[in-house]
Amino acid sequence: MTGSGLTAVQFGLGPIGSRIARAADGRGFEFVGAIDIDPDKVGRDLGAVAGFDDEIGVEVTDNAEAALAKNPDIVFHSTVSSLEVAKPQLVRVLSAEANVVSTTEELAYPWWSNASLGEDLDDVATEHGVTLLGTGINPGFAMDTLPAVLSTPMEAVDAVTVERVQDAGQRRKPLQEKVGAGVSVETFEADIADQAGHVGSTESVAMLADALGFELDEIDEAIEPVVADSVIETEHVRVRSGEVAGIRQTARGIIDGDAVISLDLEMYVGADNPRDRVEFIGIPSVSITVEDGYHGDIATAAVVTNVASTVVGAEPGLATMLDIPTSFTRRV
Amino acid sequence: MTGSGLTAVQFGLGPIGSRIARAADGRGFEFVGAIDIDPDKVGRDLGAVAGFDDEIGVEVTDNAEAALAKNPDIVFHSTVSSLEVAKPQLVRVLSAEANVVSTTEELAYPWWSNASLGEDLDDVATEHGVTLLGTGINPGFAMDTLPAVLSTPMEAVDAVTVERVQDAGQRRKPLQEKVGAGVSVETFEADIADQAGHVGSTESVAMLADALGFELDEIDEAIEPVVADSVIETEHVRVRSGEVAGIRQTARGIIDGDAVISLDLEMYVGADNPRDRVEFIGIPSVSITVEDGYHGDIATAAVVTNVASTVVGAEPGLATMLDIPTSFTRRV
Repeated sequence: MTGSGLTAVQFGLGPIGSRIARAADGRGFEFVGAIDIDPDKVGRDLGAVAGFDDEIGVEVTDNAEAALAKNPDIVFHSTVSSLEVAKPQLVRVLSAEANVVSTTEELAYPWWSNASLGEDLDDVATEHGVTLLGTGINPGFAMDTLPAVLSTPMEAVDAVTVERVQDAGQRRKPLQEKVGAGVSVETFEADIADQAGHVGSTESVAMLADALGFELDEIDEAIEPVVADSVIETEHVRVRSGEVAGIRQTARGIIDGDAVISLDLEMYVGADNPRDRVEFIGIPSVSITVEDGYHGDIATAAVVTNVASTVVGAEPGLATMLDIPTSFTRRV
Repeated sequence: MTGSGLTAVQFGLGPIGSRIARAADGRGFEFVGAIDIDPDKVGRDLGAVAGFDDEIGVEVTDNAEAALAKNPDIVFHSTVSSLEVAKPQLVRVLSAEANVVSTTEELAYPWWSNASLGEDLDDVATEHGVTLLGTGINPGFAMDTLPAVLSTPMEAVDAVTVERVQDAGQRRKPLQEKVGAGVSVETFEADIADQAGHVGSTESVAMLADALGFELDEIDEAIEPVVADSVIETEHVRVRSGEVAGIRQTARGIIDGDAVISLDLEMYVGADNPRDRVEFIGIPSVSITVEDGYHGDIATAAVVTNVASTVVGAEPGLATMLDIPTSFTRRV
C-alpha cells in the first residue's frame, strides 16, 4: 500500500526508525512531526536526521505531546524491544487518537508473555477508535506470518521448522557487536549471552502456534555462540579462528514434550548460505527457501510502511499480523 | 481455520469438488446438502460419492433450491471455469443468503476480463449480506496471492516472474489428457492447443498487478507444447520421444512494452524439478522456491477449506484473496 494522503509522525529515530521514516517518505506519507529524546537530534530537521534527500520543514522534538497535536493518521514507533518500557509511549500516542505501527518486538504478539500489557493497550486503542500493530521482519513476518501464510495450501501441519540465517557481516556495526562478533567464547558466556539474543522469538512461536491452532504447553529458548573456524573480516570487525562470530538462537513450541514449532535464528559474520527457510511436516510436507534471506533492516522498514495503510483502516484495537488482510509492496 | 460449528453445502462433485468436500468434512464442516447434475451421483449419499470414510445421511440432489433451503453457512462451489456459465449458479446460492467459496477460475479476480459479471455478483452478494470468493491453488494462491505476500518485506518491486512447474504424471488422468500427453505435435496444434490451457492466468496477472500497484496496458497469453526427448511412462499414459508431454503456458502483464509480471506455467509428464518459484527484481531482489511445488489437487481443496471460515465472517460482497485476512491451516 502507499501512504498517499496519509499524515505521519515518526516516534524514535535510531537506525531502524530512521530507515522507516525514509521508506515512509518514499512511499508518500506526509510527515507532520518527529519525536526523539537524543539531544543531538532534537531541534534538527527530520529529513536531515533520517537521511531524506531533502529537509522537509519538520523539526525533531522531545515533546511527544506537541508532535502528536498535529493529529497524524499514523505513528511509526521504533524505540525499544520491551513492551513494558514502550507502553507509556504507546498509550500517549493512542490517546491522541493516532493509529500505530510499532517495531517493539514484544508487541508483535503479546498474548503469551505480556497478556495483561496487551489487554491494557487493546482497551486504550479500542476506546480511542484506533488500531495498534507490532510488526517488522522478525518478529512480524519471516518466522511467523510467512510460515503461517505458506501453510494455506496444506491439508494439515504436524510440525514446522523455520530457519533464518543472516550474515551479520552485512548488517550494522551495533548488530555485529550485539551478537558478540570478535570476542572470546569466555567473554561471550560471561558478558554477552544474556544480551546478545534477538527479542521476539517467543512472540513468533506463540503467534505461529495461534495461526496453526497449536495449543502449546510451553515455549523454550536457548542461545549459543557460533565459533569461527577461520579468520573473518568485515568492514567493522575482525574475527579470528576460535573466536565468536555471532549467535545461534533457538525457540521451540512444545506439545506433550515434542517440538511442533522450531525456530532457529543464526546471526553471525561470514554466515554460509544466508536464507529464510520453512520446512513443514504435514499433508503434504513442503519446504520453502528464500535465497539469501530477507535483509533485516530494509525488510523491517518495508513491512512497517507496507502495512501502515491497512492499519489505518482496520478495526480498532490491538491487532497482530494474523488479523489484517494480506499486505504487499505497492508501487508508489 | 476450522469449520467447527459451520454448516456447508457442496455444489459440484467432480474430482476437485469431491476432494474439497472430503477436506471440509475432515476440518469439521457439517454438510447439510450436496448438489450435482450427474445421474450417477444424484440420490446417493454424499459420503459415498465424495469418498468420506462413512456415509453421512446427506443425499446428493440435482435440485439446488432444495439443498440451499437447508440454509448453509457456506457453499463450496466447484463446477466450471467460466464465470459466465457459473453466474446463474452463484446468483442462486447468494440469493439463498449463503456465503460461497468457488473454484471457478475466472471468479478469482474478475476485474480485468469479466468486470460486469463481477459487478453483478458483487451487487447480489451485498444485497443478501453474504460474501463470495473465488480461489484455489491457481488461480488464488501460487501465482498471485503468494507472490503478493512475499513482496511485503521489499521496499519496491520493479518486476516479478512466477514459475509453476508441475509433473502432470503425478496428477489425475483427465489432466494428463487435457495437456495432450502422448499425442503428436500436429494433433496438439490442430485439436488440443485451444483447450489444453489452464484457465486463470489472466486473472492471476491482473490480481498480482492490483496487489503491486502496477497499472497494466495489456495482458498477453501464449501456449506451446512441451515435447518429450525420451520415453515417459505414467500410470495412465506412455509418451514417446518427439510426442507431446504437456504444456508450457505464459501470461505477461505489460507496461510500456515491458513485461513487469511474467507467469510461466509448465504442466507435463516427467517434469524435471517441479517447483513454485518467485523471482522479484526490486529493492532488494529476492527469489523464493517451494521445492516440488504445491500439489495442485490437495492444495486447491486446502486453500478453499482454509479460507472458508474467514469468508463467513467477511464484509459482504465479492472479495478476492487480496481483501481477506491472511489464512492458514489450523489444526482441527
